[in-house]
Amino acid sequence: MKRIYIQEVATRDGLQIEDQFVPTDKKIDLINRMSDSGLDKIEVTSFVSPKAVPNLRDAKEVMDGIDRKPDVTYTTLIPNVKGAERAASCEADEVNLVASVSETHNQKNVRRTVEQSFADFKDISGFLSGTNIQINGTLATTFGCPFEGSIDEDRVMNLINEYLELGAKGITLADTTGMATPKQVYQLCEKVLKRWPDLPVTLHFHNTRGMGFANVIEGIRAGVSQFDASLGGLGGCPFAPGATGNICTEDLVHMLSFMDYEMRADLDQLIDTSKHLQTILQREVPGQIIKAGKITDLHAIS
Amino acid sequence: MKRIYIQEVATRDGLQIEDQFVPTDKKIDLINRMSDSGLDKIEVTSFVSPKAVPNLRDAKEVMDGIDRKPDVTYTTLIPNVKGAERAASCEADEVNLVASVSETHNQKNVRRTVEQSFADFKDISGFLSGTNIQINGTLATTFGCPFEGSIDEDRVMNLINEYLELGAKGITLADTTGMATPKQVYQLCEKVLKRWPDLPVTLHFHNTRGMGFANVIEGIRAGVSQFDASLGGLGGCPFAPGATGNICTEDLVHMLSFMDYEMRADLDQLIDTSKHLQTILQREVPGQIIKAGKITDLHAIS
Repeated sequence: MKRIYIQEVATRDGLQIEDQFVPTDKKIDLINRMSDSGLDKIEVTSFVSPKAVPNLRDAKEVMDGIDRKPDVTYTTLIPNVKGAERAASCEADEVNLVASVSETHNQKNVRRTVEQSFADFKDISGFLSGTNIQINGTLATTFGCPFEGSIDEDRVMNLINEYLELGAKGITLADTTGMATPKQVYQLCEKVLKRWPDLPVTLHFHNTRGMGFANVIEGIRAGVSQFDASLGGLGGCPFAPGATGNICTEDLVHMLSFMDYEMRADLDQLIDTSKHLQTILQREVPGQIIKAGKITDLHAIS
Repeated sequence: MKRIYIQEVATRDGLQIEDQFVPTDKKIDLINRMSDSGLDKIEVTSFVSPKAVPNLRDAKEVMDGIDRKPDVTYTTLIPNVKGAERAASCEADEVNLVASVSETHNQKNVRRTVEQSFADFKDISGFLSGTNIQINGTLATTFGCPFEGSIDEDRVMNLINEYLELGAKGITLADTTGMATPKQVYQLCEKVLKRWPDLPVTLHFHNTRGMGFANVIEGIRAGVSQFDASLGGLGGCPFAPGATGNICTEDLVHMLSFMDYEMRADLDQLIDTSKHLQTILQREVPGQIIKAGKITDLHAIS
């Protein structure tokens, strides 16, 4: 049985764009429930400017407040050395760096050229070299850019290489606005894993155009075993109002568990935690299993 | 380039469970727009009892009222010889018979044992033998039953055989309540096509638990090329309130067209027709592309 690693991003990729600020104690409680659910990694928060992302202004309090389990990796997104210092002060297990493959998207997202972003990352890497904190390098818009359109695979390969040269231990290929097709996912992942067979590659999909799970299946077929997902399918895309968000954690674990993949995650606990998330947000989340039930939840014949 | 055939079911599988009756002229206009969009087959309506399905009580008027294109197959669901007579009076190209693989589901759905259903089908086949009307045999709950749970593949194989023996030219394997997993789809389709390599097999998926498109990808990989889908993702499941419906036609054509599959269907016309469907129903439908746009719809850099 192939082991699949489920990496939760709802409290970062999801909560950052919610209309409401989720109180710090509720965030901490939510993350503790996630830890108990057997997720392999949790992207707890983001050490970005509170002005840019007010919903995550309590990043340090959240990181300091959660109960940490030894077999869960607690990661935080950081944009610069200041973020790295804050992550280090909270003893994050890992920091997640993000640059876009598309120049235009990087400029819009972080007001830097991609070259400037990687120059910053070098400084971050230098700062972290004396610590136990691992670096994960995320490439946003890997499968397409909402401004530039299709993305050159060679550019993706080169940027992966740049991340590895500055010491990243893992790489995340992110489909930031849900543009990846299953065929494209298979082809790119095959290419990446051919060049770096032992590289821990994470796929980060948004279900914006309904292709999320088809992309997961093709990613697995190409050899990938780490997937980002968001409880309840939280998250979204500023360019696609009304579209669904990140692929949904409990729906993903549901699908894969009935395909005989091995995961640490506990499906029933994830479903409970997703329902809890709905009560926190006081709204319906996009996840399907909390509405439809598992395929093993049979109905009375009556 | 592999050719994929897109078969539309929104006016049958979708409209039958809507809260409102869609007026006959609007149905006719909708189906005419579907015909213009290059769909390969349209399941126009269902010749069932108007008491059982009041939304489709205008089945004959709709069939008689639509403009028919020579390269579109117009099919209707029928439950018995009386339905076959009505379908014949409208010169349907095909009739679609439905029996469930699960005894319990068949009993609930048509108040018959599966054996009784196939006895009826024999009568239908006898009646149609003097006509040009083709028979398609659908097996509901092929991938799981909401009452009985998992389904014996040998039973599926035997029922396919029964359909073929009574003269069915095509078989539809229907995942009536969205229980199929991608692995299961690949395995069953491979088995079916190994035994009947030239059989036109249709896969009919509901996206109840988010697995619809992953199932399509695995069906194609196993050799299937005909897929039912519903404009706007209309349809649904009485056992899963709030869950999504059939897989969405325009989202499916969108995904496959960017994977280099060949289809007759015109994506832009389908998107327009889906938006038109929203105005008919005066509500949002589950389809994602009408919200998010195609992956080639770029945003201004500004």
